[in-house]
Amino acid sequence: MRLLLTGASGFIGSRVIRQLIGEDAHALGRSEVSGIGFTRGDLLKDDPADFLKTFQPTHLLLLAWNEDRRTIWNGVENLAWVAATLRLLLAFRDAGGERAVFAGSCAEYDWSHVYLDEAMTPLRPHTGYGLAKRALFDLVTGTTSLSPVSIGWARIFFPFGPNDKPDRLLSQVIDGVAAGQPVECSQGLQVRPFIHVDDVASALIALLRSDLRGPINIALEEAVSVRDLALTAARHVGDPKLLQFGSRPFQPGEPPVLRAAVDRLTRELGFVPRYSVEDGIKATVAERLGRIEPSKPVSR
Amino acid sequence: MRLLLTGASGFIGSRVIRQLIGEDAHALGRSEVSGIGFTRGDLLKDDPADFLKTFQPTHLLLLAWNEDRRTIWNGVENLAWVAATLRLLLAFRDAGGERAVFAGSCAEYDWSHVYLDEAMTPLRPHTGYGLAKRALFDLVTGTTSLSPVSIGWARIFFPFGPNDKPDRLLSQVIDGVAAGQPVECSQGLQVRPFIHVDDVASALIALLRSDLRGPINIALEEAVSVRDLALTAARHVGDPKLLQFGSRPFQPGEPPVLRAAVDRLTRELGFVPRYSVEDGIKATVAERLGRIEPSKPVSR
Repeated sequence: MRLLLTGASGFIGSRVIRQLIGEDAHALGRSEVSGIGFTRGDLLKDDPADFLKTFQPTHLLLLAWNEDRRTIWNGVENLAWVAATLRLLLAFRDAGGERAVFAGSCAEYDWSHVYLDEAMTPLRPHTGYGLAKRALFDLVTGTTSLSPVSIGWARIFFPFGPNDKPDRLLSQVIDGVAAGQPVECSQGLQVRPFIHVDDVASALIALLRSDLRGPINIALEEAVSVRDLALTAARHVGDPKLLQFGSRPFQPGEPPVLRAAVDRLTRELGFVPRYSVEDGIKATVAERLGRIEPSKPVSR
Repeated sequence: MRLLLTGASGFIGSRVIRQLIGEDAHALGRSEVSGIGFTRGDLLKDDPADFLKTFQPTHLLLLAWNEDRRTIWNGVENLAWVAATLRLLLAFRDAGGERAVFAGSCAEYDWSHVYLDEAMTPLRPHTGYGLAKRALFDLVTGTTSLSPVSIGWARIFFPFGPNDKPDRLLSQVIDGVAAGQPVECSQGLQVRPFIHVDDVASALIALLRSDLRGPINIALEEAVSVRDLALTAARHVGDPKLLQFGSRPFQPGEPPVLRAAVDRLTRELGFVPRYSVEDGIKATVAERLGRIEPSKPVSR
């Protein structure tokens, strides 16, 4: 595997490259990363064919996307990233690439179905982000002529981790409780299959190394409420009474429960997650508060 | 209306620009056109923002697509054109554009539904071409943040005309019968809503000038069999007995009948087609055989 990846400086990408040190891997993007090879480039502007001349990858992992939380859900940036992703994929194919894995999202599914299954659940996104990922999914998995490039499409579910941005709930809980400050939360009754970002990263790498095609959920079978997620984190940090549930409004339209089918992930890919939700939260707290070294991947 | 259009040298585009002479219109593409302004550029490679600096359009008509019949239905070129179209749209929006009209296709629909209606018929394309158009439709009509650009999406049904390529059925019939040669045809029993290319062109211009949003079928209510289309043309040319029906195989998977809902086109847009199918065929024969001057549009 000679891997080119995009989005290496992002939330998931930065954890992927920690598992790639020593591999024949190369990152492409605007923000420099260390540990693997790096080429500076702007996927939204530059001709992607130029990037593939120096490093000729056999494998491609496409994680780059708009990360600005003000525009992520409904901004036109989603269209720009569809275009940029398609252009890079086509250049990769022209350069003899063999295997590409994309970061799709559980946001592609119709969330009214609660149990989200790759083969059964209709795709009916509720956001511009989900719409863009779904359109890209249709395009890259439905275009038979992309062969011989083999396409794996990872539908990632609710990742969390120590490197989450400070304005994300789990970061607020950890940072706030550690500082002895009250933390405002919603009631947090919605149940979601959260997954530690290092397990997402490991699953993506396993998917790259496999020839598994089409959509595959990257998720834990286990699902917990946002409230339990926050409480578990708070208990590992300090005083859980600092959490003020109900002091933030409930997001309208949020389904109470979502669960992920994980048969493809566990049986077809044979992936075994490292962390339960509880263990993942524990590791996140420890790493975020600097109590331990960043967790090491199980294997290289 | 200060119009930029792509695909101006193509089958539909070349008829659109005949109706735009004297207008504030500008074509962008690889093949030079005359009659309106022209900028040479490669939408698949160049940065579209560069094109918009000299001619700042208020309106955009996107007709350019892969026209190679070997790859049109399932080639990766469809993905490249999705990317190129999105990039031009975003550059147009950034440059202050107001109204964009896209060439969609009846190939976006699920053809098992026979009667293809913008609001009711599911989109389930059977080809890579339909898939690409449908994905683009989802992206540009579903991304609310494209506002203030107003988006019209023309689903074009079975256009024919004097400038059709020689390998298209109607061209083969006209050219063959005119030369006194036998013409091989399938049984031709499938019924389709054919429309003269000049009516497609007029409808696209009317759609540009309107603020009608979302999908709109560009089609006649009338539908005829391929056999009747060919026979009508042959009768206007010479001896219809030269048509050898059944000497070509039936295309498997072709639905026997397709019809188009035209309420949006006729009532909401108020469009009145110039040609019935019979009149359109007559005009096509006359123009293709050079018996008359190319038909003039009804109005400028």
